[in-house]
Amino acid sequence: MSEFKHWLSEIKWLNRDLTGKDFLLTRERSTAEIKQILCTAQALRHLHKKNIAAKCFSSGLAVSQFRDKSTRTRFSFSSAANLLGLTVQDLDEGKSQISHGETVRETANMISFLTEIIGIRDDLYLGVGHNYMKEVAAALDEGYKEGVLNQRPGIINLQSDLDHPTQSLSDLLHIENRFGSLENLQGKKIAMTWAYSPTYGKPLSVPQGIIALLTRFGMNVALAFPPGYDLVPGIVARAGQDAAGSGGGFTRVDSMAEAFSGADIVYPKSWAPYKIMEERTVLLKKNDPGGLQKLEQECLAQNANFKDWECDSEKMALTRNGSALYMHCLPADISGVSCKEGEVTAEVFEKYRLETYKEAGYKPFIIAALMLNNRFENPGRALETLYKRKTPRM
Amino acid sequence: MSEFKHWLSEIKWLNRDLTGKDFLLTRERSTAEIKQILCTAQALRHLHKKNIAAKCFSSGLAVSQFRDKSTRTRFSFSSAANLLGLTVQDLDEGKSQISHGETVRETANMISFLTEIIGIRDDLYLGVGHNYMKEVAAALDEGYKEGVLNQRPGIINLQSDLDHPTQSLSDLLHIENRFGSLENLQGKKIAMTWAYSPTYGKPLSVPQGIIALLTRFGMNVALAFPPGYDLVPGIVARAGQDAAGSGGGFTRVDSMAEAFSGADIVYPKSWAPYKIMEERTVLLKKNDPGGLQKLEQECLAQNANFKDWECDSEKMALTRNGSALYMHCLPADISGVSCKEGEVTAEVFEKYRLETYKEAGYKPFIIAALMLNNRFENPGRALETLYKRKTPRM
Amino acid sequence: MSEFKHWLSEIKWLNRDLTGKDFLLTRERSTAEIKQILCTAQALRHLHKKNIAAKCFSSGLAVSQFRDKSTRTRFSFSSAANLLGLTVQDLDEGKSQISHGETVRETANMISFLTEIIGIRDDLYLGVGHNYMKEVAAALDEGYKEGVLNQRPGIINLQSDLDHPTQSLSDLLHIENRFGSLENLQGKKIAMTWAYSPTYGKPLSVPQGIIALLTRFGMNVALAFPPGYDLVPGIVARAGQDAAGSGGGFTRVDSMAEAFSGADIVYPKSWAPYKIMEERTVLLKKNDPGGLQKLEQECLAQNANFKDWECDSEKMALTRNGSALYMHCLPADISGVSCKEGEVTAEVFEKYRLETYKEAGYKPFIIAALMLNNRFENPGRALETLYKRKTPRM
Repeated sequence: MSEFKHWLSEIKWLNRDLTGKDFLLTRERSTAEIKQILCTAQALRHLHKKNIAAKCFSSGLAVSQFRDKSTRTRFSFSSAANLLGLTVQDLDEGKSQISHGETVRETANMISFLTEIIGIRDDLYLGVGHNYMKEVAAALDEGYKEGVLNQRPGIINLQSDLDHPTQSLSDLLHIENRFGSLENLQGKKIAMTWAYSPTYGKPLSVPQGIIALLTRFGMNVALAFPPGYDLVPGIVARAGQDAAGSGGGFTRVDSMAEAFSGADIVYPKSWAPYKIMEERTVLLKKNDPGGLQKLEQECLAQNANFKDWECDSEKMALTRNGSALYMHCLPADISGVSCKEGEVTAEVFEKYRLETYKEAGYKPFIIAALMLNNRFENPGRALETLYKRKTPRM
Repeated sequence: MSEFKHWLSEIKWLNRDLTGKDFLLTRERSTAEIKQILCTAQALRHLHKKNIAAKCFSSGLAVSQFRDKSTRTRFSFSSAANLLGLTVQDLDEGKSQISHGETVRETANMISFLTEIIGIRDDLYLGVGHNYMKEVAAALDEGYKEGVLNQRPGIINLQSDLDHPTQSLSDLLHIENRFGSLENLQGKKIAMTWAYSPTYGKPLSVPQGIIALLTRFGMNVALAFPPGYDLVPGIVARAGQDAAGSGGGFTRVDSMAEAFSGADIVYPKSWAPYKIMEERTVLLKKNDPGGLQKLEQECLAQNANFKDWECDSEKMALTRNGSALYMHCLPADISGVSCKEGEVTAEVFEKYRLETYKEAGYKPFIIAALMLNNRFENPGRALETLYKRKTPRM
Repeated sequence: MSEFKHWLSEIKWLNRDLTGKDFLLTRERSTAEIKQILCTAQALRHLHKKNIAAKCFSSGLAVSQFRDKSTRTRFSFSSAANLLGLTVQDLDEGKSQISHGETVRETANMISFLTEIIGIRDDLYLGVGHNYMKEVAAALDEGYKEGVLNQRPGIINLQSDLDHPTQSLSDLLHIENRFGSLENLQGKKIAMTWAYSPTYGKPLSVPQGIIALLTRFGMNVALAFPPGYDLVPGIVARAGQDAAGSGGGFTRVDSMAEAFSGADIVYPKSWAPYKIMEERTVLLKKNDPGGLQKLEQECLAQNANFKDWECDSEKMALTRNGSALYMHCLPADISGVSCKEGEVTAEVFEKYRLETYKEAGYKPFIIAALMLNNRFENPGRALETLYKRKTPRM
């Protein structure tokens, strides 16, 4: 029980008011605000373990809009909504009248009359996803201001072209618990590196989210990728500044081995070449299927030049005491398991498999924490009420 | 608070028992019954604004069956169910065994064992949708009478070939609030007119729903459409009779301009040519895709003769003081925005855009009111209990 | 009220602890355990009739995974979850990242962080469905043991290649209520027979489920099918042994007429030829669409040899007093209604149509009973609490 009280007192001490603040990019939120989200997630996780109900809503919708496939984020969003008492309604563009010429502005209002939270995944095209979320946000601002909506639903980014905050926050919570505290992360080295994959068009949001967030918590972030696999320049520049500010570090290296050297944590994960992702958006807007197919071939050929960017035992041996924590947002491309050649050998993955499952297990609580902080001015008081009430969840 | 008490006392005074009565056509319900629905919607809307929980069910399903695309009605139905404590289960004909040869009668029972409400949209074919709903209703009657079902779920028409009551009731609530009261609508002129659209096969249910409902509330309804765009004859004939009975009026005019002249409200909205919709049903039953494609071309060509049926500033200037209220069920075909040439100019639409959003915002409460009245003998008492309990919604 | 108390005292007397035990095959559960499931379903059905809320969960997911089409089981699962307070989240493989190379082991954990129950239908391929469920079970065992999951979700088989327990238990509850008690089933004859259908590839799970379950309750089971339509040999062998053990009987006969002779109950229902189902699995693993199409033609041609295996009035006249109870899991292939020639004549089906609907109506309560027994150590106490609390469901 003292564990819950610890998180509660942290939240009360941080005392941030996040109500009505959309969560699109971690960099838009202060370190204190991010800590409050983490503490709220810890507290909710504790309530769940102790079979204490965390229902704060008697009714209300949590709308999800997935413009890309998803298992874990879809289930995490559902789980989080359900935990707090919200009901998920999926906005399926195929079944809706969006194809009949609705504007984003109109749809945003139409789905929001009794909605508390809107979660959006839109990560397929560089320059599109984040802008789409901002367009939805502006529409909701107008609708609320003009009396169309009784309440202004909060938006949670479930992955955009720029960031993947529910992933990076889950990852941060995982390493906080693994290393004992956020303070213990100071000076720890994490290798965020590209890895080979035989697939096409993986988003840049995970590596961008990781370098943007962890440099702010004093970590020593080494980013590695082959020529042509750059991330969005502004995010990289900002990571360097943030590292300087937090007493951490940020370096750009040219090989997986160099990044792994002495690392406490490794995060080898494929993503698409930046230039190709940019070109892809142009071709999509031109509606040029032939061009897109050609681009896919080009991209796969480019990937194939870097098959040695695979996380194997040899490279793991270069890490601190040969025993860095391996991380992945899942699903990983595991050589010989889910593909012929991939991001990680079966041997390394199997060793850390259950750790990656635990890493994923934080996501429902992170999303619930984002929901709770978006709707309750005083999340500490809301949590305390639940804790004192002690209604058994079943 | 006095606002809530006003609606409550109206409901108690009207004192209609609507339990078990399907809501398929507004014309099957008395004026007092319709007023009670409107008052219930107002009361529920008030509770929502004041953050008072409106949960009346601890469990129970609200089944939705959409045989046509939908955003706003789908979300309105979900929102309404959620507000009252029901859980939506969508009957997706692709995923079900309907394609394996189930009869309507059988499916109706199979989805109803723990179901309170069934909402159906079936508006694509003239002579089909309303009959389908009646077939479902008969199956439920039999299932309940014969002991298959513990309860007889209520049916709510979410748009048929004949009527669109959740739309027309939302529209009526919008203008009631806009003009101050239902009484104030007496003698007000509304122009329900066809408008040009480059799309094919829009249902006739909205104009039919509007002329059928508003003529009963003392309004002066002017219906305008080009040659060949007639509505279902029986509905038009009945609208004339109802107007006479309510002290309103009903006229058939030949141009948008004539209909707009001196109007307090305009509702310019496209629909498909009646004869073509009839032919379409025949071709569909014959399963003649070639014939259907030819018919679509014919229909679009016919539409193109009437591109001047566009709601523009010039025509709006003909209305009372040049400032009639513009209405639309959304999404509208806005010239230069969602299509090249459409129902309304961007200028006019933009001026009334937020008004149309507000108009749409009544729908969740109308549907919730229909649900509540279908299940509770004494909806006034149910609402009063909620109001006195004052459980915060969040 | 005394009816509820009767079921409650039975449950207390049986006193089985089914928590954490997956329900994949009825033969894995003792007769006492099966009786306890039936009594729980009866008690829940009683609460529903009396409008008493049966909500035992404040939050929690019930995940459904349908690898084949379904109406009644989908709605039964939803209804059961909703009755107890769980929220359904469907795992739709098209929308998830399963196609991105997730392993069963990984997906099982990813969907389970806040999940109480997982219902799976996987009946299309011999040798696949049951093994898939066991693979999911093993993954959940590992995830729970290793601290990935706070709770180990229970698995309910919603139809596999081997068994269809929610169907056979509903059927057993139907005949228990029809014949007055389980004891009254002793010595009653049931004809489980193949019937002609113009469709391809119907699973073997229903006949297998019926012979496996009813032979354990003292019934005299006659199984009939044409040459080549054998069931899985192990299940047939076991049915013979179980019949001997329960004082019932199990015979294999060669015609529908012989099976019907003197029967108290008849269950004529099509299934696919065993050998063809085996070959089909091989072709599917080889990904041979041409071979599969050829096999379908072969199967339909084989079926067509046995069009006289139709349940008609003449054959019904052979049953005890000519008035056996006709059963079907629905939808049936009704000659002249859902197909040209099928399993049953329209005349016979119409006579028993409402009985088959009632038979189907037990399924939501059976599934709810399986859920309750899987999660509550003492289901009797849980039911008693609900009964004493008497919260009205609406």
